[in-house]
Amino acid sequence: MHSIDLASHLRRMRQARPLVHNITNHVAMNTMANVLLALGASPAMAHAREEVAEFARLAGAVTLNIGTLSPHWVDAMEDAARAANEAGTPWVLDPVAVGATALRRDAGQRLLALSPTVIRGNASEILSLANQGSGGRGVDSTDTSDDAESAAVMLAQRSGGVVAVTGETDLVTDGRRLARIAGGHALMPLVTTLGCALSGVVGAYLAVAEDSFEACVAALASYAEAGRLAGEEAQGPGSFSVAFIDAVYRLDPETLNRQARVELYDAP
Amino acid sequence: MHSIDLASHLRRMRQARPLVHNITNHVAMNTMANVLLALGASPAMAHAREEVAEFARLAGAVTLNIGTLSPHWVDAMEDAARAANEAGTPWVLDPVAVGATALRRDAGQRLLALSPTVIRGNASEILSLANQGSGGRGVDSTDTSDDAESAAVMLAQRSGGVVAVTGETDLVTDGRRLARIAGGHALMPLVTTLGCALSGVVGAYLAVAEDSFEACVAALASYAEAGRLAGEEAQGPGSFSVAFIDAVYRLDPETLNRQARVELYDAP
Amino acid sequence: MHSIDLASHLRRMRQARPLVHNITNHVAMNTMANVLLALGASPAMAHAREEVAEFARLAGAVTLNIGTLSPHWVDAMEDAARAANEAGTPWVLDPVAVGATALRRDAGQRLLALSPTVIRGNASEILSLANQGSGGRGVDSTDTSDDAESAAVMLAQRSGGVVAVTGETDLVTDGRRLARIAGGHALMPLVTTLGCALSGVVGAYLAVAEDSFEACVAALASYAEAGRLAGEEAQGPGSFSVAFIDAVYRLDPETLNRQARVELYDAP
Repeated sequence: MHSIDLASHLRRMRQARPLVHNITNHVAMNTMANVLLALGASPAMAHAREEVAEFARLAGAVTLNIGTLSPHWVDAMEDAARAANEAGTPWVLDPVAVGATALRRDAGQRLLALSPTVIRGNASEILSLANQGSGGRGVDSTDTSDDAESAAVMLAQRSGGVVAVTGETDLVTDGRRLARIAGGHALMPLVTTLGCALSGVVGAYLAVAEDSFEACVAALASYAEAGRLAGEEAQGPGSFSVAFIDAVYRLDPETLNRQARVELYDAP
Repeated sequence: MHSIDLASHLRRMRQARPLVHNITNHVAMNTMANVLLALGASPAMAHAREEVAEFARLAGAVTLNIGTLSPHWVDAMEDAARAANEAGTPWVLDPVAVGATALRRDAGQRLLALSPTVIRGNASEILSLANQGSGGRGVDSTDTSDDAESAAVMLAQRSGGVVAVTGETDLVTDGRRLARIAGGHALMPLVTTLGCALSGVVGAYLAVAEDSFEACVAALASYAEAGRLAGEEAQGPGSFSVAFIDAVYRLDPETLNRQARVELYDAP
Repeated sequence: MHSIDLASHLRRMRQARPLVHNITNHVAMNTMANVLLALGASPAMAHAREEVAEFARLAGAVTLNIGTLSPHWVDAMEDAARAANEAGTPWVLDPVAVGATALRRDAGQRLLALSPTVIRGNASEILSLANQGSGGRGVDSTDTSDDAESAAVMLAQRSGGVVAVTGETDLVTDGRRLARIAGGHALMPLVTTLGCALSGVVGAYLAVAEDSFEACVAALASYAEAGRLAGEEAQGPGSFSVAFIDAVYRLDPETLNRQARVELYDAP
């Protein structure tokens, strides 16, 4: 029995219906908004430098994703992160393919310097952000979560935030505690931007939580449980993504507590 | 029995297969194009200032949506609105979250000044555009359609166009006539950008109609009927959005006339 | 019996899991990424001029699509095409609505001048790119593939690449050989950006093939077969698009060889 009451995180989030402001990539926007609505949160997508600080101040959480970045968008992300920091609003960094190009490495380091509340990426991205990686190959990870464990712990300690490495097994650490979350489904990596949308879900849980580590574990466990349920009905990645949105919508707090496969450790 | 022959609006639109040119937000583009294709219209999405006037002149209707706006895009929207006005082409303004930031308030007023044929928004957006609102909270409405009735009538009279307030019950007015459209389904607000896509549907009906008020009522009634049908099959917002596209495609004109819940009044 | 072993093209592609770098339009990005993942390839979407050459050098194939173009994006597409050419990487041009506006005609000719490995478009687009067309009406074709045959052969000879004209029947030519591919389903043109996503699939097959003509035929035949399968389950374009992604994922090489309706000719 794990010691985080996942159900209560989910209930609190649904009750608050937090506004989550996302500057995310063009591929992910629609999926992320649908996942957040199905979950019970209220998504806002806005990227213009002229308004992102205002949105960040309205929001319960901010998420920043460099998937289809351009220099102007990175400037806006910095503004949003600063506004979030000033308002005491939690924010999530999703460093998509951060090792692939110079532009991404630079954007990753600039946003990392602004102290994200949570960094969520795949193993290659976390290794790269911690300057230990091969850079992955494009967008998909070429490393496993376990490969990234020590990099994640180090990155969490250095940044003062929580680091989540998602993959077949997920790993969350705040540099002191460490959680492993199993579950999900083999079709999840075959649906584009489910990882990006998960960063939005982390934002939604952060918006109502006192403990960012716990919120992050609750978000990942919720996602894994929805993936498990969707996998029972899917014939392929098309029907999986439809069933997944339905499963997020229908997530039952008690079933989540019962089904979740979360293990807690002290960080090594 | 209401006095608008909805079936004939739908038939005329399908027969003409109007080209609808949309400058819409990044989140909505795919959904909007799919809804328009399923309906029987031909969507074009193009936003570069260098070509929007050309597209607007080719199109049967233009729709402009400020959901993920930037200053450059608003300039392009103004060009498209002017080209539509010069060509006598109807156009729709969708003032997404217009009250949320200074950039949006400014964009909303600039486009309103160009006399949209139809303004379609949720209650908070219409109140805000009419300078009476609280601004909503992000993208989702915090007011009901009835709250926005007098603002809608006033806005229609001031702008010389039709105003549609969509929500649990929809409201359409040209400042003189007023319609209420019931129906739809509770899952509709949980699917992102269905409201944005509805603005495209309004455009498709406008392209073939002489009476913009009637066209707008027919568009909203068609949407509500498709929502009702989709709701019968849905297990959540994922399966709802799939069933909704199918229902739009399979809309039967006679069933629409029979099922639609439209009430007509004189504006107060 | 046709003489291209489609099954072996599909198997080779799945085994290699090629990285396909796409600069595509905002409407298509999500669909294209999902189709490529379902097929067994690894998509990357990135458009910033500061990084496209790096991505093009990492990739097994590059695809460039002018659907929601802007001048800055066209500059980036030129950079990506040049980097692909220098690296000997195949690339696909998808000239969406190329005849509709001056901006598109100019972009089409600039990219054509960089010698795409494959040009894939509908009949109106191919006619327009070859300077013979009416320009279509917006995005949808107003001509049939047969109307475009001589233009396609001429364009292939002039550009030194392969030209694919997709529609009810598809046509592929390298200026010397010619293939006709039948199949697919009547709902395919009612799902937005399936044509755009097909350009990604062509890229995936090109990445592992020695003969671009054969690769292109194999890609189109795979798509037609997936369309046929999806059509058996669909109630409309919504359920079609879900079933289509599942069918792409489940494509069986032997069934593909057996079901494909490919005819090969000498070009006239």
